[in-house]
Amino acid sequence: MAQQLNGAARGKRIYIQEVATRDGFQNESAFIETDDKVALIDHLSDCGFAKIEATSFTSPRAIPALRDAEAVMHRIRRKAGVVYTVLVPNVRGAERALSCNVDEVNLVMSTSESHNRANLRMSREQSFAQLKDVVAAVRGTGVAINVSLSTVFGCPMEGDIDEAEVLCWMARFAEMGVNGFTLCDTTGMAYPSQVEQLCGHARHVFPHTELTLHFHNTRGMALANALAAIAAGIDRFDSSLGGLGGCPYAPGATGNVCTEDLVHMLELMGYDTGIDLPALLQAAGRLPGLVGHDVPSQVLKAGRRLDLHARPAYLDEAERSKELA
Amino acid sequence: MAQQLNGAARGKRIYIQEVATRDGFQNESAFIETDDKVALIDHLSDCGFAKIEATSFTSPRAIPALRDAEAVMHRIRRKAGVVYTVLVPNVRGAERALSCNVDEVNLVMSTSESHNRANLRMSREQSFAQLKDVVAAVRGTGVAINVSLSTVFGCPMEGDIDEAEVLCWMARFAEMGVNGFTLCDTTGMAYPSQVEQLCGHARHVFPHTELTLHFHNTRGMALANALAAIAAGIDRFDSSLGGLGGCPYAPGATGNVCTEDLVHMLELMGYDTGIDLPALLQAAGRLPGLVGHDVPSQVLKAGRRLDLHARPAYLDEAERSKELA
Repeated sequence: MAQQLNGAARGKRIYIQEVATRDGFQNESAFIETDDKVALIDHLSDCGFAKIEATSFTSPRAIPALRDAEAVMHRIRRKAGVVYTVLVPNVRGAERALSCNVDEVNLVMSTSESHNRANLRMSREQSFAQLKDVVAAVRGTGVAINVSLSTVFGCPMEGDIDEAEVLCWMARFAEMGVNGFTLCDTTGMAYPSQVEQLCGHARHVFPHTELTLHFHNTRGMALANALAAIAAGIDRFDSSLGGLGGCPYAPGATGNVCTEDLVHMLELMGYDTGIDLPALLQAAGRLPGLVGHDVPSQVLKAGRRLDLHARPAYLDEAERSKELA
Repeated sequence: MAQQLNGAARGKRIYIQEVATRDGFQNESAFIETDDKVALIDHLSDCGFAKIEATSFTSPRAIPALRDAEAVMHRIRRKAGVVYTVLVPNVRGAERALSCNVDEVNLVMSTSESHNRANLRMSREQSFAQLKDVVAAVRGTGVAINVSLSTVFGCPMEGDIDEAEVLCWMARFAEMGVNGFTLCDTTGMAYPSQVEQLCGHARHVFPHTELTLHFHNTRGMALANALAAIAAGIDRFDSSLGGLGGCPYAPGATGNVCTEDLVHMLELMGYDTGIDLPALLQAAGRLPGLVGHDVPSQVLKAGRRLDLHARPAYLDEAERSKELA
């Protein structure tokens, strides 16, 4: 009998990277107070994440929700073993990030021309040139460089993105010596067999580069996609507390894969995520109060699989009706 | 490179069984008019389902939402190739169902003693004895008999259910010559490696019996579980239009796996579900109006993967700002 999922999982380490305070908060209309951001990141630091994307050094005019990036980075407690990464769009952002002693900068461009123009207001070649300058500014400082490629599993305007296109963009950055790539399913278009194929190819072509998968649960497939990625040799995932986040340029595209839902599934299957799930659920439970609305987390609502319910009191009554109908 | 998901899928038939008008509607507080039920089932009949669980022949007092079972079964149009099944709790229900010329009766009991008592108000042995009488009443009529076993992947009161327990209950019914089993994840406790293992064993022990998997998306794992079941040789799934339904005896346990989300994923992967997805989405789109509330369907909200969006108008403007930040 096939038991591939069982056999593969036992104790295998899967690295979980939290993005709620950057990818989640940047989509919130209400400003989250700096104190609350710092307290949340400090709590998350104790949950066992491999990496936390703390904030973004973009223009305060462009993303006012993260205008306190310096304050956040200066005030959070740095836990040994946790990589604190930040999004950086250009050299100015990189300089701000370096002055805050970040562990990693995360650069973003899209593999779709239309999405890059819609999201970043420039061509992909213009983005590439700009990010090349960022790499030049950061290389040699000891700060790691990750490149996030958007829409690799499909663009909401262009449709499918050719796999060769994705691999070519990766190769151009790899040649500059970046440390890692994140393959982003920006608007939830990825499906499991596609994920397994692209991840398998990327893992094969770049065996020594850190590869992260970033899924959205827009069409319900995020957890299935994560398992497909693992089957192709991926061991590192972005996820967002409470499932917070989305893409403002793609209507209907809400929800990064939810951290607690992902961790809950992987731990049940025998993977070692290093995450303290009860501590994580505590943090998730405070999130609706912090952002002022419900969050799409399933495990937060339903509880963990073995959070059992009491037997109904009437079961202990002597008389029971003999049938329902 | 591993491409197990791609390789296995190409054109393989997966049978989809719609349960919204029974499992979904029985949980609705407002009565759905008989005309609306009949119109919906007739629409679903044209969508390509292998089976439709149309209604339930339970006591009108116990489940008033389905008190029009006879009227529904007499008025729906029977499409050739579609199996019309109904839930039947006892001999009285079976007689009513037989008088309506159903294709199959679906009997239900739980593999958890506590859940059976909570849900059906009797012990499992009492349920078994009652269902044995139903089997005796139906056998020889040409009407097929399916047995749905609840909580096989865990009980919200007892926790894990021993696999041997599940297989033993199946064996006791198999000995009576029932035609099929549905393994139900009643409150969404199943996880992929567990699903692959139990399904693999069930498929091995009962190779000639129709096996259906019935998942709930309570903890977000329903689609991942479906793929795990397929990996173990399962080719038949219950699902509910719009993700309608849940279990009133398990707080927080909402949502059968959503038919359109399941079909959308499987078709993208190359499986042949036989379902007309646009027609299905038309039916799903009318559901919120019918039940008076939003439904947890993801594909209904976000659209199919390649339902593309127009490029924003500003992309056609001559001037573009050079950077986001």
